[in-house]
Amino acid sequence: MKAEFINPFLVSTKNVLETMCQVKVQALTPKLKEDTYSSGDITGIIGLASKSIKGCMVLSFTESCILQIVANMLYEDPKPAINEETVDAVGELTNMISGGAKALLSELRQTFELSTPTLVVGKGMEISYHTDLPTIVIPFTTEYGEFVVEANLGSK
Amino acid sequence: MKAEFINPFLVSTKNVLETMCQVKVQALTPKLKEDTYSSGDITGIIGLASKSIKGCMVLSFTESCILQIVANMLYEDPKPAINEETVDAVGELTNMISGGAKALLSELRQTFELSTPTLVVGKGMEISYHTDLPTIVIPFTTEYGEFVVEANLGSK
Repeated sequence: MKAEFINPFLVSTKNVLETMCQVKVQALTPKLKEDTYSSGDITGIIGLASKSIKGCMVLSFTESCILQIVANMLYEDPKPAINEETVDAVGELTNMISGGAKALLSELRQTFELSTPTLVVGKGMEISYHTDLPTIVIPFTTEYGEFVVEANLGSK
Repeated sequence: MKAEFINPFLVSTKNVLETMCQVKVQALTPKLKEDTYSSGDITGIIGLASKSIKGCMVLSFTESCILQIVANMLYEDPKPAINEETVDAVGELTNMISGGAKALLSELRQTFELSTPTLVVGKGMEISYHTDLPTIVIPFTTEYGEFVVEANLGSK
């Protein structure tokens, strides 16, 4: 994945979290995913595909972090554990962040369509990819904890 | 999802498992996924997308089932637990099954491209979708246990 394709995912994540969830997020240095798994308690996954491009974007949170973020998003107190509402919110965040990145990437002449988001819930699940494309991990910190956005995108 | 779109996923799964893994699989009655989670220990997820269509396909196995299937696939003894080789094999199965379904669906004038497969490993993780499209669950039984293929596919 070209370095210039990282920024659209980073910028879109920051935009969506800050405007929709009133959460100040800071992106740490993006890194190449190397034979390592990332871990989260709730993960949103969306496919990116067109005739010339393939990839995917993943958004994964610890439970404590997402419960606070969703509370902000819905103007509610945090729930005690991940529930259907949390899953729905992560689905919506996955759609919004990938949609924002898609718009920014189209300006770099990277055009693709988005699949349906899949949500996976499980304590400390490990995430990896079946691809030769380099996958970028962007760690984010918030006052509520950390989360990651991962993406790969490349020509077929 | 139209009923006629179920068969390509069913047929492709059976083809791939029987030819690549020498596993006799029987499809149980496909059902609509209704407010329920499916559960698995290792899950392959791939997005389906084009300008007119969006969807996804998910393949999820219990640990005991996939360890035997991968042993068959690689002509080896089963490993004691899910490892990198298992994850890689599920990625390959996800590619092959969705690729077969894509070819069959194009005959029904449903054309789309495939994203990169994402693999998630975690004990009894729960899988759901962020979509209004009906999602079909196809349970399969084998001599080694059960697994599921889930898919949704629809016009934008």
